Amino acid sequence: MKVDGRHYRSIWVGDDGWSVAIIDQTRLPYDFVVLHLTTVAAAAQAIKTMQVRGAPLIGACGAYGLALAARADASDAALDRAYEQLVQTRPTAINLKWALDDVRGVLKNTPPDRRVAAAYRRAAEICDDDVATCRAIGERATGLIAAAWHRKNDAGQPDPRVQVLTHCNAGWLATVDWGTALAGIYVAHDEGIPLHVWVDETRPRNQGASLTAWELGRHGVPFTLIPDNAGGHLMQRGQVDLCIVGTDRTTRNGDVCNKIGTYLKAAAAKDNDVPFYVALPHSTIDWSLADGRAIPIEQRDVREVTHMTGRADDGSIRTVQITPDGTPAANFAFDVTPARLVSGLITERGVCAASEQGLLGLYPERAKR
Amino acid sequence: MKVDGRHYRSIWVGDDGWSVAIIDQTRLPYDFVVLHLTTVAAAAQAIKTMQVRGAPLIGACGAYGLALAARADASDAALDRAYEQLVQTRPTAINLKWALDDVRGVLKNTPPDRRVAAAYRRAAEICDDDVATCRAIGERATGLIAAAWHRKNDAGQPDPRVQVLTHCNAGWLATVDWGTALAGIYVAHDEGIPLHVWVDETRPRNQGASLTAWELGRHGVPFTLIPDNAGGHLMQRGQVDLCIVGTDRTTRNGDVCNKIGTYLKAAAAKDNDVPFYVALPHSTIDWSLADGRAIPIEQRDVREVTHMTGRADDGSIRTVQITPDGTPAANFAFDVTPARLVSGLITERGVCAASEQGLLGLYPERAKR
Repeated sequence: MKVDGRHYRSIWVGDDGWSVAIIDQTRLPYDFVVLHLTTVAAAAQAIKTMQVRGAPLIGACGAYGLALAARADASDAALDRAYEQLVQTRPTAINLKWALDDVRGVLKNTPPDRRVAAAYRRAAEICDDDVATCRAIGERATGLIAAAWHRKNDAGQPDPRVQVLTHCNAGWLATVDWGTALAGIYVAHDEGIPLHVWVDETRPRNQGASLTAWELGRHGVPFTLIPDNAGGHLMQRGQVDLCIVGTDRTTRNGDVCNKIGTYLKAAAAKDNDVPFYVALPHSTIDWSLADGRAIPIEQRDVREVTHMTGRADDGSIRTVQITPDGTPAANFAFDVTPARLVSGLITERGVCAASEQGLLGLYPERAKR
Repeated sequence: MKVDGRHYRSIWVGDDGWSVAIIDQTRLPYDFVVLHLTTVAAAAQAIKTMQVRGAPLIGACGAYGLALAARADASDAALDRAYEQLVQTRPTAINLKWALDDVRGVLKNTPPDRRVAAAYRRAAEICDDDVATCRAIGERATGLIAAAWHRKNDAGQPDPRVQVLTHCNAGWLATVDWGTALAGIYVAHDEGIPLHVWVDETRPRNQGASLTAWELGRHGVPFTLIPDNAGGHLMQRGQVDLCIVGTDRTTRNGDVCNKIGTYLKAAAAKDNDVPFYVALPHSTIDWSLADGRAIPIEQRDVREVTHMTGRADDGSIRTVQITPDGTPAANFAFDVTPARLVSGLITERGVCAASEQGLLGLYPERAKR
């Protein structure tokens, strides 16, 4: 999408033809800094420290990480070590493992002297596929947004803007381009459908306040930032027409693992009859898990809860402690929204019920023989 | 309750016999600063800027504000002006209006030359009544906590500690002493019942992270701070035995207006069959409202959402901006939890259903003739 009029992807190969360029998302929204990754260790570090984040993007970055590894040593043993180094960086999102399995599978069937080129080619294909997939998700979601707009227009509502609530950042920064939850918002906005987005701050890492606010603002989409606590109140007052969120892993039965707090919004949406949609590419579906209970929930450094980083009046980036000294804290990064609370899954192939039957309707090749 | 072993109330008359001492809650948890209010303007400012906050405490501070006003000018006209100045500071909590009506009513029936003494006496009575009321609420709530403990013990659970989740700060800092939601936690803890409190951070003003964490820690109650987003996940995993929150206004039918985000926890509690209790003194009940829809919801400065204050590494208190420049934000301070999601109301007279019938069972004098 656009940053002040110029088009960007979230990951690309540098002008040197081999380094991997990323936008350092830990510096947003204050500084727009492009980093060039040159080793698999740097790629693993970028994923672990969340310089890149978002399930599809960490998959793409993992794929390029294997390409960087192959450049240094294209042997099976070296690639296996690189795979292990990368796959252990983040445990919850399934796309990372999916992309790493994919690239490693390609390389195992390629002679070592052609592996570097093959790895870069496959990583580029994964990126292009992600862009096409997310664009398709956007077009599917736009149908839902347009329908809400027509309903409000037909009902003669004074403000027919479609009010969408989203949680965390499932925008183009979380993918290679377009995003998942935000893809439909970008497509609908670009097509002239009037809409407004309620952006959950998304504590403790504030991806909504820093990343979603930044990318919607830079592309020119109207939005309002709200504390995570406010979404239920807005739904009660009729200020939310639909919720759209992303997911880090969706299980066979339609359970959705996403950023902590997603479940609270889904429960409130159910209580208020607000449609709750989850947007996802095929690579986010974990066909091996029957339901969400078995998904490992990452626990992160509690300093993310007790401290907050932002820009001080003098322009410096400062970290401040917001709690009494020694405060014990817990930091679960994800929760699982049960399928029964999900109105529908929006994938590149269409919108389906959050159920095994629904998913198999779109992905019949996944049916057990 | 105790601060490092020494007993405090949240408001008291200074050693000079007339100034009104408060703990500046905007300086917590970093600095423990006692302020002496000497004018009605200072009292109004303390309420508005949340140097004092919490429905019962702002009622008490309002009462003392009228006493300070009477000291300057005890005429009916001056007291009416002071009443208006104070009542407009915070629109949602009903206790403020309740306390102001009470003191003004007393003063109208008192000759002007005795009004100063009468106002101080009545304000002190309101404070003492609040302490006794909150202590009684604590004893009622302890019965619920003890019952949960016995259930877990009888079930042979390896960790029989009672896990209580609370939102915002409804502790002694929000009242004159003991608190409402936390009163039962203090009484149960002091009686030796093992418990652990999940403390919601409570964005955007972080009353959980700053005030509840501070007062529980200072009194020695085990707790863990969590982002507001995490409570649903903990309930899903069986880590919450009961929720107890406070309220700023409870309507005749049992609807509960409390800090923004309370409703999300109530909806999740319902979805997980976790009991959801609301603790309140009689002064928080608005008998004039049939239900919660008519309660005015205060909207506060959006800077509370876009900026965050804490202590930097060098010990200075700094405010940092956590959003892109110019980010539009909304800041609703309260939401309304419908009575159907409330397991029970804990008042100084006992625990009742969240319904008109339930409340009238405890307060039969409020029945319409």
